[in-house]
Amino acid sequence: MGKRAATSQLERLTFFSDAVFAIAITLLVIEVHVPHLDTRDDGAYLQALAALTPSFMGFALSFLTIGALWMAHHRVFGLLDIHHERLLWPNMLLLMVVAFMPFATALMSANPLARVPELFYAGTLLVAGLLQHWLFRRALAPGLVRPGVPPEDIAALRWRSLGLPTAAAIAWIVAWWLPAWNDFL
Amino acid sequence: MGKRAATSQLERLTFFSDAVFAIAITLLVIEVHVPHLDTRDDGAYLQALAALTPSFMGFALSFLTIGALWMAHHRVFGLLDIHHERLLWPNMLLLMVVAFMPFATALMSANPLARVPELFYAGTLLVAGLLQHWLFRRALAPGLVRPGVPPEDIAALRWRSLGLPTAAAIAWIVAWWLPAWNDFL
Amino acid sequence: MGKRAATSQLERLTFFSDAVFAIAITLLVIEVHVPHLDTRDDGAYLQALAALTPSFMGFALSFLTIGALWMAHHRVFGLLDIHHERLLWPNMLLLMVVAFMPFATALMSANPLARVPELFYAGTLLVAGLLQHWLFRRALAPGLVRPGVPPEDIAALRWRSLGLPTAAAIAWIVAWWLPAWNDFL
Amino acid sequence: MGKRAATSQLERLTFFSDAVFAIAITLLVIEVHVPHLDTRDDGAYLQALAALTPSFMGFALSFLTIGALWMAHHRVFGLLDIHHERLLWPNMLLLMVVAFMPFATALMSANPLARVPELFYAGTLLVAGLLQHWLFRRALAPGLVRPGVPPEDIAALRWRSLGLPTAAAIAWIVAWWLPAWNDFL
Repeated sequence: MGKRAATSQLERLTFFSDAVFAIAITLLVIEVHVPHLDTRDDGAYLQALAALTPSFMGFALSFLTIGALWMAHHRVFGLLDIHHERLLWPNMLLLMVVAFMPFATALMSANPLARVPELFYAGTLLVAGLLQHWLFRRALAPGLVRPGVPPEDIAALRWRSLGLPTAAAIAWIVAWWLPAWNDFL
Repeated sequence: MGKRAATSQLERLTFFSDAVFAIAITLLVIEVHVPHLDTRDDGAYLQALAALTPSFMGFALSFLTIGALWMAHHRVFGLLDIHHERLLWPNMLLLMVVAFMPFATALMSANPLARVPELFYAGTLLVAGLLQHWLFRRALAPGLVRPGVPPEDIAALRWRSLGLPTAAAIAWIVAWWLPAWNDFL
Repeated sequence: MGKRAATSQLERLTFFSDAVFAIAITLLVIEVHVPHLDTRDDGAYLQALAALTPSFMGFALSFLTIGALWMAHHRVFGLLDIHHERLLWPNMLLLMVVAFMPFATALMSANPLARVPELFYAGTLLVAGLLQHWLFRRALAPGLVRPGVPPEDIAALRWRSLGLPTAAAIAWIVAWWLPAWNDFL
Repeated sequence: MGKRAATSQLERLTFFSDAVFAIAITLLVIEVHVPHLDTRDDGAYLQALAALTPSFMGFALSFLTIGALWMAHHRVFGLLDIHHERLLWPNMLLLMVVAFMPFATALMSANPLARVPELFYAGTLLVAGLLQHWLFRRALAPGLVRPGVPPEDIAALRWRSLGLPTAAAIAWIVAWWLPAWNDFL
């Protein structure tokens, strides 16, 4: 496969990934269920909206998480020069977890008092973070990165890719010990 | 990062944004609930469709609003030459509100008699408008715009980006004082 | 706006349109409701699937219709050279009707015995066809088409764009006179 | 149509296909229904999640299947040089079956004890595999492939495209004879 073709294949892989990120991030809203009241009373509506707070928070949290995952993907793939088949599977598995995020989010938002949904959510993030780290290690290996990228930049991106799994692991431990933080809301 | 790479990163940011706009605009239809009648009587169907008027109106209004937001994004980003990290977060927050529009639309359509859903909808538009204005101010700052774009064009786009927040603020005030305009339909 | 920029804007308009077509065509499946039976009896499942025949037919019909609309869009926009603002609104309105197709499809599939849903579906197709005809007339006007495209090709595409509205108008009339053709299935 | 235009049309066909693959793969999660419990009991949540095992397995299986279909599409279309109208319809029909996969998946996941949903799912895969084989035969015919691609590569891709239909046919036969393999889970 010539160089031009490998670049175009990289573009297509990037494009497919962007599309899955964009769809998963936008599907989050589907799980925020619309209340349907038979009244004109303002208070009833405000109460119904207040009851949706866990859903709104879940939407925002997952939107920003998927957004951050996409931005990191954007930064790392922006450094690559050519496509390599070795990226296909780690990327596909990362996308699978991203596509699964709307479920994990809705599970947590629909059951705000319980510990298991929070552990499940944090666990999903942990898997996403580990897959992202694996993908970025492969992507930033010598040979795929564009010539001229300073090695410090590559090292910085590698370190950064430890951020999400670390945060998710901490969230997991916190959720285990402090299950019902939502009670304080 | 070289110039070519920065251009390609801008393309990817644009692409991701386009995808979120396109998905949010198309998801609007999901919230128009399909009536399911057990009759052949034409009148019953016409009545069921007439009862969906608020949903149809909400679909059309939000479609055109998101469409106008996309067109403005399309115009402004069409003037840019390079990618800048400073655009990432304002853009992501704008996309978050765009992705949230199907919820706000459905809330208003499902509760056509009440004031709070209308205020919520107008408030969502207001936030979208303010974020868009913030993003465009950053995007149209010197350094990102392609050389050769006349300054009048840039100024005009900056002014135009005040249109949506102004209209949304007016809609908010009108909804506050004239809550039940839907009653007249 | 320079020529290169106008080409890139055309690409972005094309891209956004493709995304809306792709999302609307894929969302069709959401309205095919999954039966959930509490039995192992093969016959019960076959019966439940047979009862979904109108949904399957609606899915296939609308998939092929949106597919044909996309292919025509693909052909016409493939002849264009530059972007023109005059295309934005007709294109956006066409996309609005395309995005609305999942509703019209589900309305017809969920109410297979009645005439109004069929008229509504045929009417939606008619509007889509007329908007497409309007868009293509504007797009194929002198000035936007790439130099070197034979005038016969342009004339042929203009004629072809009368196909969908004509077919939809015929379907509308047939549905009016022969409402319950589904009875014979 | 000039060579440059034919390349750009191929890109657009590829893009539309990618989008449909990406949407169908991401929509799979919608059919995994979120449990909503009114308890804080960890055991109840674990039980509810365990009951979702068929849905999780269906999600993963279909995600990987659509992912593999996309990767094969990606490989084959990466070898092409120009667009040909002859690819449009086989591609559209393949996309129709891909877009239908969320329904077939949900049917199987929602009815894990029964044979008909498994046969239906395997049958859908079989149709997808046959359409893919047909599309790839047309795409890899002389004239569309980029000059310089070794004939062995083309032959290998043709052989590989027999993999999915073969696997699906075997799954179909297994499901026929061993309907309730899910019982052992």
